[in-house]
Amino acid sequence: MNILRPAFILDPAKVKDNIRMMAVKAKESGIIFRPHFKTHQSRVIGRWFRNEGVARITVSSLTMARYFAEDGWDDITVAFPVNRPEVGLINELASQIRLGLVVEDLATLNELKLRLASPVDIYIKIDSGYHRTGLEPSDKEDIVSIRAAADDGRLTTFRGILTHAGNTYSVFGKAAVTEIAGKSMDAMLQVKSFLGEDQACLVSVGDTPSCSLMDKLTGMDEIRPGNFVFYDLMQMNIGSCTFHQVAGIVVCPVVAVHPGRHQAVIYGGAVHLSKDRISIEGKTIYGQMVEWYGTGWGEPEENSFIVSLSQEHGILEAPDRVLRRLSPGMLIGIIPVHSCLTANVLRGYRLISGETIDHLEGI
Amino acid sequence: MNILRPAFILDPAKVKDNIRMMAVKAKESGIIFRPHFKTHQSRVIGRWFRNEGVARITVSSLTMARYFAEDGWDDITVAFPVNRPEVGLINELASQIRLGLVVEDLATLNELKLRLASPVDIYIKIDSGYHRTGLEPSDKEDIVSIRAAADDGRLTTFRGILTHAGNTYSVFGKAAVTEIAGKSMDAMLQVKSFLGEDQACLVSVGDTPSCSLMDKLTGMDEIRPGNFVFYDLMQMNIGSCTFHQVAGIVVCPVVAVHPGRHQAVIYGGAVHLSKDRISIEGKTIYGQMVEWYGTGWGEPEENSFIVSLSQEHGILEAPDRVLRRLSPGMLIGIIPVHSCLTANVLRGYRLISGETIDHLEGI
Repeated sequence: MNILRPAFILDPAKVKDNIRMMAVKAKESGIIFRPHFKTHQSRVIGRWFRNEGVARITVSSLTMARYFAEDGWDDITVAFPVNRPEVGLINELASQIRLGLVVEDLATLNELKLRLASPVDIYIKIDSGYHRTGLEPSDKEDIVSIRAAADDGRLTTFRGILTHAGNTYSVFGKAAVTEIAGKSMDAMLQVKSFLGEDQACLVSVGDTPSCSLMDKLTGMDEIRPGNFVFYDLMQMNIGSCTFHQVAGIVVCPVVAVHPGRHQAVIYGGAVHLSKDRISIEGKTIYGQMVEWYGTGWGEPEENSFIVSLSQEHGILEAPDRVLRRLSPGMLIGIIPVHSCLTANVLRGYRLISGETIDHLEGI
Repeated sequence: MNILRPAFILDPAKVKDNIRMMAVKAKESGIIFRPHFKTHQSRVIGRWFRNEGVARITVSSLTMARYFAEDGWDDITVAFPVNRPEVGLINELASQIRLGLVVEDLATLNELKLRLASPVDIYIKIDSGYHRTGLEPSDKEDIVSIRAAADDGRLTTFRGILTHAGNTYSVFGKAAVTEIAGKSMDAMLQVKSFLGEDQACLVSVGDTPSCSLMDKLTGMDEIRPGNFVFYDLMQMNIGSCTFHQVAGIVVCPVVAVHPGRHQAVIYGGAVHLSKDRISIEGKTIYGQMVEWYGTGWGEPEENSFIVSLSQEHGILEAPDRVLRRLSPGMLIGIIPVHSCLTANVLRGYRLISGETIDHLEGI
C-alpha cells in the first residue's frame, strides 16, 4: 500500500470482531443493540453492523442521521438535545424513517409539537451522574410534565428515558466503571419507577467503558456504545479493551529525527490526530507509536508517545533504541488517543488491504 | 442569515484590515511578506491578499500548495520538512510554479536531488529556540554541508534559512514576545554569518505574535505570519491583538440551559471548535462567548467560557446574568481558541453578509 501522508488505517477483521462481540453480548442479555455511529460515520462500516443483525442505530447529529438514512437505515435515534433551528431537517427525516429525538425541556418539546409534520419518538434525557446534559432524577415534576406533553402530542410518542454515563471515561478498571454504571442504572430505574413501571418506558444507556467491562447488562432495555468499534488509547487507558482490540491506527511519515532531544518529528499534527489527549504518568499524551509493517502493525512501543502537536507536526518522544530505527521518509503507526475525533479530522479510512472507505466528513 | 448548525462566521472588513496592516508593516520595513495560508486555507481569502500586492505565499503541506497553485499562485514555500513519500507531488508542482522546500537533513536532500525532475528552491530549517524542528545554530558543520549540497545540485538552489519562533505562543505581552523574537533573530544572524554574508542567504522568520507586536522588523528579509488574518482567543491572551481585530467567531445554537449548574449546552463540540485550549486563571478554556446579533457580534462576555467539549456538545459556564438571557434554540457566538484548527474542522466560512466561502478541507 502506497501511503503518502497521514492516513487512518483499519484492520477490518478487528473492527468486525468488535462489532460481533458487542452484538452477541446484547443478544445474550436480551436487550436492544442500538450502536452509536458517530465514531465511524461510515456507510461501509455501517453495513458490517447490518451483517450482524443490527437494524437500529444512534447518531449525534441530524446531518449524520440523513447520511445514514440515505443508506437505508430506517430507525435512527439522534442522541443529542433537539436543535430547534433544524426543525426542517427533522421533518424531512421523520417523513422517511422512524426518528427518535431527545428532549430535556418542555419549551423545546412544545415548540417541536407546533412545527412537526410527521411522527417522531421522544426520549427524555436524564443526567445519571455525568452532568453534561439532561434532567436530574430529582426533577420529577419536569420529567413527568415532558412525558405527559409527549404522550399528548398528535405526532409525538414518549418512548423512554436515555442517558450517557460519560463519567466512566475518567476512571480506570472494571470495578470503578461498574460502580459508575451501577449508580447510573439506579438513577434511571428511579426515574422509571415514578414514570409508572406498567407503561412503555424503555431505558437506554450504554457508553463504551460500561458496555465493554460489565459482565451482565441487566436493568437496561437498550445499549448505545460507539467507540468500541475501533477502541483507542483512551479506552486502553481506562481498561475497556486490550491493545489487540484496537482496530485502527494513523500511519504517518517521519520527517525529522533529533536524537539529542530524544525526539522525532512526524507528518501528523492536530489536523490528523485531533488535539484530544490523555494524561499518562502526569504527561500529556496525544498518541503512542507502533511499528508499521505495510500490511499491519506491531505492539505499542514502550515510552514512545506523541507529546506535542502543531497543525501538521507531531513530536514523538521515544527511547534511543526506538529512535535509532527511525529515519526521514519511513512510515510509523500512531495509536490515536480518541478514535472518534481522529476519524472525524481524517475524513476517510484505508483498510490494511489498501481499499479506501468512506467517512461522512469526506463526502 | 439562516444559521442551522455551528458555522465559522467572518467579518470581511476585519479580515481585510488585518491583511492590510501586516502588508503595510512589511512594505514599510522593506521586507518580503510571504503570509502563511495554513490558517485560512481559502482561495477567496487568498485573493484578498493578492489585492494587497501579495505575490508569494507559505503553506504547510504539498496538498495545500497544489490547491493554491491551481488558483494562480506561482511562488509558494512549503514551510514543513520535505516529506519524502510525496516526491511525485513535489515534481508535479515544481514543473508548474516556483516551489520552495525546507530541508534539515542531508540524507533527505540527497534523496530529493536524485528524484527531482524540475528546479526547486531550498531553505534550511533552523531551530532558533522553539525546539520543534530544525538544526541548531551550533550544528555549523551540518548546515554548511546541506547548503553546499543544495548549491551543488542541478535542480536545487540554496535560497536561505528559515525558522519559526513558536515559543512566542507561550508568553504574554510585547516585552516577552520581543525578547524571544530578538533571541531568534540573533540565532539566525549567527547562522547567516558563517554561511557567508556576501552570498545570497535570505533570512525568513515571523510567527504572528512577533510580527504583530514588534515595532521594527529589522534583520530579517522575509516574514511568514498566518494566524493574524483572523486572530483568536489565544492571540488575545498573548496580547498580539485586541478583541476588535478578531475577525471570526463560531456561531452555535444553544440546546440546553442548566441554571443550577451555571451552565448552558451548545451545539458546538470538538468537531466544530477543535480541542485546542488555553489556560485562563488555571482553568482550561475552549472558547469565550459573545452575543450574536445576526449580522455581527458583541464584546466578549466576562467569565463566559467553554469549559468542556465532547464530540458535538460544548459546555458554556457563565454568570447568572448571562445565562438568564439564553434559551434553547437561540444562537450565540464563540471566539475560538485557535482559529487555524477551528477553520480546519469547520471546512468553510460564511461572511456576515451570508455569502459562503471555501476552505481546502471543504473541497
